[in-house]
Amino acid sequence: MKLKALGEDAVVARLLTELPGLCQGRDVIRGAGDDCAVIGKPRAKMWRLLKTDCVIEGVHFAPDAAPEKIGWKALARAVSDIAAMGGQPEHALITLALSPEEELERAAGIYAGLGKCARKYGITIVGGETARSPGPMFISVMVSGTVERRACVFRSGGKAGDRVFVTGRLGGSLGGRHLEFEPRVEEGRWLAHEFRIHAMMDLSDGLGADLPRLARASGCGFRLEEAAVPVNRGCTVDQAISDGEDYELLFAIAPRDAKRLPMAWKRKFPRLALTEIGELTASTKKKASLHGYDHFA
Amino acid sequence: MKLKALGEDAVVARLLTELPGLCQGRDVIRGAGDDCAVIGKPRAKMWRLLKTDCVIEGVHFAPDAAPEKIGWKALARAVSDIAAMGGQPEHALITLALSPEEELERAAGIYAGLGKCARKYGITIVGGETARSPGPMFISVMVSGTVERRACVFRSGGKAGDRVFVTGRLGGSLGGRHLEFEPRVEEGRWLAHEFRIHAMMDLSDGLGADLPRLARASGCGFRLEEAAVPVNRGCTVDQAISDGEDYELLFAIAPRDAKRLPMAWKRKFPRLALTEIGELTASTKKKASLHGYDHFA
Repeated sequence: MKLKALGEDAVVARLLTELPGLCQGRDVIRGAGDDCAVIGKPRAKMWRLLKTDCVIEGVHFAPDAAPEKIGWKALARAVSDIAAMGGQPEHALITLALSPEEELERAAGIYAGLGKCARKYGITIVGGETARSPGPMFISVMVSGTVERRACVFRSGGKAGDRVFVTGRLGGSLGGRHLEFEPRVEEGRWLAHEFRIHAMMDLSDGLGADLPRLARASGCGFRLEEAAVPVNRGCTVDQAISDGEDYELLFAIAPRDAKRLPMAWKRKFPRLALTEIGELTASTKKKASLHGYDHFA
Repeated sequence: MKLKALGEDAVVARLLTELPGLCQGRDVIRGAGDDCAVIGKPRAKMWRLLKTDCVIEGVHFAPDAAPEKIGWKALARAVSDIAAMGGQPEHALITLALSPEEELERAAGIYAGLGKCARKYGITIVGGETARSPGPMFISVMVSGTVERRACVFRSGGKAGDRVFVTGRLGGSLGGRHLEFEPRVEEGRWLAHEFRIHAMMDLSDGLGADLPRLARASGCGFRLEEAAVPVNRGCTVDQAISDGEDYELLFAIAPRDAKRLPMAWKRKFPRLALTEIGELTASTKKKASLHGYDHFA
């Protein structure tokens, strides 16, 4: 059967059956299924976060995209996953596969963008590889970070009744924001340290794909108040739900904490929207009618 | 200028100029330029090793290669780099980019091969991504491991007069061994713990490319005794030097230790060859006439 007939989540589920007993092991706090892998001793003060991610020419960026923006996006995507755990990115490794016909200046521009993102988020680039690609350009990025155990936020801690919030505004990323978004590292760390966030993830495939994932990981259902979804200028609510590549934070928090959050947020981050868009529910039966981006569909 | 006009080492050197001050930082023992990145406090008992590596359809494996062997190779290459530091692989993340037209069973076969390698080397697979590729299949692997500080071996510690050894036999990997080689993890750890190895790396681009790299990293020249190079059946010495993808260990050791090494090795690893093939020299002036695999040439 072809991958496109199955969709991404079913493909991943099938592939994982080839790894019996190989996904849990020594020092693994959390393996596949969250924004990052979490490594450490259960009672250690600090845990290590590991994330890999890739961008591919013709899929994640157009061939004529500005090289600096390609490099920025390649690193920023993985940084956004570290942010979604409440973590701090520290080290990165870069794998860049290029055609031998590629111009050196384009590759250098991509590295300049990687460097710009690394500098902004305090990341040291500790290595990488270059390889020859017979097809499109391919950039794979690995980011290692740390998180205080007490601040680490998984996708799976949501509870029925939790309020669901999202940072920023959603939709229309293909107009350009997908190449220059700012991972919410400071915001994620502030949330994780100042509040008891039950569950959090970053929005990469769109609210329509990612909110059901967060709810499912938490063993909950969800109710989305579509009229409340914060929409980028020129976008419909449908676009805000299904376009993807927003790289904003989606999280669930107890109703009591949800009351004092908006004021505290506004004082700390006066220029970034924070919006309550729904809640987690006890029912997991309702089939989600939402949809987001599927990599194989 | 096109990449192929420059060659890989020159391309990498140019790209690194885009990262001023971004390649050294907190907890970075060793960044780019060795088999792995090394992370930790300078006096810690254990250091962390990070490595990313990729294999691409049409470059590192033929489209009709057995899927299990493709998966094995993808993970084993990065494991070999951990071995070259004297380290122990622990955790891996897998990024797999595939055409939506791909058959699920081929992807599952690749995962079976990844799993086989993970099981053999005691690695937990803690996550990964699937992505859509508009061109060839692309597999990027990240391996995290640990090494005792006192056992960690860099490329750069070689001294003039050191004897140079290689494990196994070289050449002819394209006949099939490049898809089923066994990373020398146990051998690397034994060497690093039982002997004072000055410098070590794994042979991925061939002795002709990699021996000059080890010598250069150590600030040395080298003398290669071509007649001593251990050659796989059916191969010429030229092939053994330039084919690449041997994934054997190449290392330098003081003359005194070099004397007692062969006997100890033979007792410990009776079925794997270990061969002295030359020495490091003080002169770095002689331009190397050897050549190995260049990814862009």
